[in-house]
Amino acid sequence: MELSIEYLKQIIAETIAEIDKIPFVQVLVSNRHVHLSGEDVGILFGEGYQLSPVKELLPGQFACEETLTVSGEKGSLKKVRVLSPVRPETQVEISLTDNFTIGVRTPVNESGNLSGAGLVILENPLNSARVERKCAIAAQRHVHITPDFAEKHALKNGQVVSVEVGSPRGTVFRDCLIRVSKDFKEEMHIDTDEANAGMIKNGDLGLIIP
Amino acid sequence: MELSIEYLKQIIAETIAEIDKIPFVQVLVSNRHVHLSGEDVGILFGEGYQLSPVKELLPGQFACEETLTVSGEKGSLKKVRVLSPVRPETQVEISLTDNFTIGVRTPVNESGNLSGAGLVILENPLNSARVERKCAIAAQRHVHITPDFAEKHALKNGQVVSVEVGSPRGTVFRDCLIRVSKDFKEEMHIDTDEANAGMIKNGDLGLIIP
Repeated sequence: MELSIEYLKQIIAETIAEIDKIPFVQVLVSNRHVHLSGEDVGILFGEGYQLSPVKELLPGQFACEETLTVSGEKGSLKKVRVLSPVRPETQVEISLTDNFTIGVRTPVNESGNLSGAGLVILENPLNSARVERKCAIAAQRHVHITPDFAEKHALKNGQVVSVEVGSPRGTVFRDCLIRVSKDFKEEMHIDTDEANAGMIKNGDLGLIIP
Repeated sequence: MELSIEYLKQIIAETIAEIDKIPFVQVLVSNRHVHLSGEDVGILFGEGYQLSPVKELLPGQFACEETLTVSGEKGSLKKVRVLSPVRPETQVEISLTDNFTIGVRTPVNESGNLSGAGLVILENPLNSARVERKCAIAAQRHVHITPDFAEKHALKNGQVVSVEVGSPRGTVFRDCLIRVSKDFKEEMHIDTDEANAGMIKNGDLGLIIP
């Protein structure tokens, strides 16, 4: 075939189609954070208080201006970010490194599952209002994908896959839970321990290995 | 073959021989620690001071009674354990999580390589003596093996392998450096970020994948 603009365009289109077949996802690193119930917003910030979202983290989920101090038996984590919207139950997501720092023992759970959750005190440092809740978990690594992406790559909601992420601390994360929803973007969510173990920063690419 | 004690012994011996072919290593988790030069021992603890070893961590390497405060631009880590014996150069090994906590940026280096090491202040809280050194690194994950083990499993000093460690946060660590010495035991050394990412505790087994 002769070398022409048309030929180059065709090569590029074919290359893009090949790349498109590879199940890459962006990796996002979740820092420790707090989801509050409406009731706990009232106790910590005052009756009828509305959280102030400042930055969209995931579709429909926001980092808020508000931060809390999270304490266990041995220590405290200051300025832990509150996320909105409110949830039916208060949930704190911290890393296993944080477990050692503040003296709490969390399970590694899917978000929303508070089975075995660790006991922590949440305090608003501005007014000293506090609640004590069995609500602390470490988040199970998981991958958000859309139904289109799931179909294209033969993945299913609830499936457990591995995800390979690059060097110089190359890591294959086993036990990654696939979650499919039309409201998602393609994103793998890991915590700061997992990010540091793999020297991974926000936006790095992960390769799904079914 | 008839079922006899001899037969059972043979089955057990064969099973042990099979297990022996699998390149398993024990995984040990290194907490943050400090190696000091003789000169810095003198500055921090006093001229002619001898460190007090209390527990052998590796053959010939000891955790000492002494601890130091390690500080960066943003914060401090208290009670960081000093190891003996002294070394030609002071070296601090911290995790990448610690990097964020104290505001220092370390490379991920093999122990002994201080190229690009982060600037930290080491202080003896008992007498306020302090030194400022470009000596902070995060340790590269590595595997110690004996020459026998190396020969049996066709591994070489300097080789880079992967190591798989179990669930529920199953992880394959790529980029693991093999070190061979007759003074070693078979051990993989990882830091606390890597341990927490994989929910690994001291003595868990890792499988070397060449």
